Amino acid sequence: MIQKEILDFIRNGDKKFLHHLSIDCVIFGYHERQLKVLLLKWKNSNKWTLPGGFIKLDETLDEAAARILTERTGLSELFLQQFHTFGEPGRSERTAADIAHLESICKAPVPKDHWLLKRTVSIGYYSVTEYSQVNPQPDFLSDECTWHDIKAIPKLVFDHNLIVDEALKALRMQIYLQPIGYNLLPTKFTLPEIHNLYETILDKELDRRNFPKKLLSLGIIKKLDEQRSIGAHRSPYLYKFDKRKYDKALKEGIVLAF
Amino acid sequence: MIQKEILDFIRNGDKKFLHHLSIDCVIFGYHERQLKVLLLKWKNSNKWTLPGGFIKLDETLDEAAARILTERTGLSELFLQQFHTFGEPGRSERTAADIAHLESICKAPVPKDHWLLKRTVSIGYYSVTEYSQVNPQPDFLSDECTWHDIKAIPKLVFDHNLIVDEALKALRMQIYLQPIGYNLLPTKFTLPEIHNLYETILDKELDRRNFPKKLLSLGIIKKLDEQRSIGAHRSPYLYKFDKRKYDKALKEGIVLAF
Repeated sequence: MIQKEILDFIRNGDKKFLHHLSIDCVIFGYHERQLKVLLLKWKNSNKWTLPGGFIKLDETLDEAAARILTERTGLSELFLQQFHTFGEPGRSERTAADIAHLESICKAPVPKDHWLLKRTVSIGYYSVTEYSQVNPQPDFLSDECTWHDIKAIPKLVFDHNLIVDEALKALRMQIYLQPIGYNLLPTKFTLPEIHNLYETILDKELDRRNFPKKLLSLGIIKKLDEQRSIGAHRSPYLYKFDKRKYDKALKEGIVLAF
Repeated sequence: MIQKEILDFIRNGDKKFLHHLSIDCVIFGYHERQLKVLLLKWKNSNKWTLPGGFIKLDETLDEAAARILTERTGLSELFLQQFHTFGEPGRSERTAADIAHLESICKAPVPKDHWLLKRTVSIGYYSVTEYSQVNPQPDFLSDECTWHDIKAIPKLVFDHNLIVDEALKALRMQIYLQPIGYNLLPTKFTLPEIHNLYETILDKELDRRNFPKKLLSLGIIKKLDEQRSIGAHRSPYLYKFDKRKYDKALKEGIVLAF
């Protein structure tokens, strides 16, 4: 069954998908001061890759990105943000060994001039999710679909390490100009919790006083008349997002300088 | 001669260029509080378009963007920044009238199924230049190559109005995170001059005190011991960019909140 699917994809994909174009997704996962990225391991190999795929003839790019992510990892309803298109000639050249590997999975010879061997330009998308709340699953091309710490990413196929680096840069730029945190933090959170989120993504220390002041003055978060008890004499106030102002800031942009 | 070039491009371009992919360039021009955009008018028509073209099989995307801009407008050595890829199905459909128009230019029938009629995904690049210092020239496909005020852009072909809007958004985001102005202002400039540049691009008022304070505190501009005489009792101090700090900020990013 799996062999048949792969063979059909190689033999007939050229009638179904745009040639020369692919999409790769960089899915960041945040949980308690840890930032990770979601990677797939190719079937019967040690090769790690980003979840990626091709664009159907009648699909928008955003639709293709969402479908590819779901097909390859099981994740859905993430907000995918296009960030850069990668097109160095030779960035994704498949080798004779890759073809031999495909043949071994298919248990059949694959055509030497199939469409996947053409030069491919890849459109990069990224998203951020709370990784303890999702359960990614490998697809039929992969053995594993797992989270890897952003500081210990293995060597990836093609130019995928570069794609991750650029996605991280884009995410770090984005959080200075758009709010982040909704869906990444509990509905009611403490200031240290949102502080940790920003520090972890930016990988740098932010001022303990200016940081929350800025978010409060923009009206993105508001203080609740409620505390969380986390030990003897320790009961920090809780905060929540002002969803209306958050959405407005998401649409119109903000400028955060902590 | 021109007809032959166009016919050859239609008949043989599919062997020279990546299918399904194009590049469009949004060239902003700044001069004394005015922000304009560079547009081409198709030969023998009233259709306005962005300078655009296709990617050769062995070119990088950045190389293709630079070549296309030079071929179509004569401009060179601009820093072109990739900002977004546009791929709605049907975004660039050529109509029967477009084909008839091509035939009228070529004075010969063109094949009804040529490669340019396929769905095309376009990679957008933008740049900003001082428009009084460059002299754009239309290419063989165009009658005109001229600057248009950003607030009076005509209806453009395909989704090119959307591409201009998105480029402007990207430029406005960029100037909060990277310095701008080198090559757009005289070597020595007054504070009102750099203030006007930022206000014109952002299309909003910036605080007269905080704005220069911020640029000075980041070290991007420095005050000279020199004044410019612009009338009786009016001789504002001159400033210049600190090129080392400017380049560092360009590379590492800054956060401007005026």
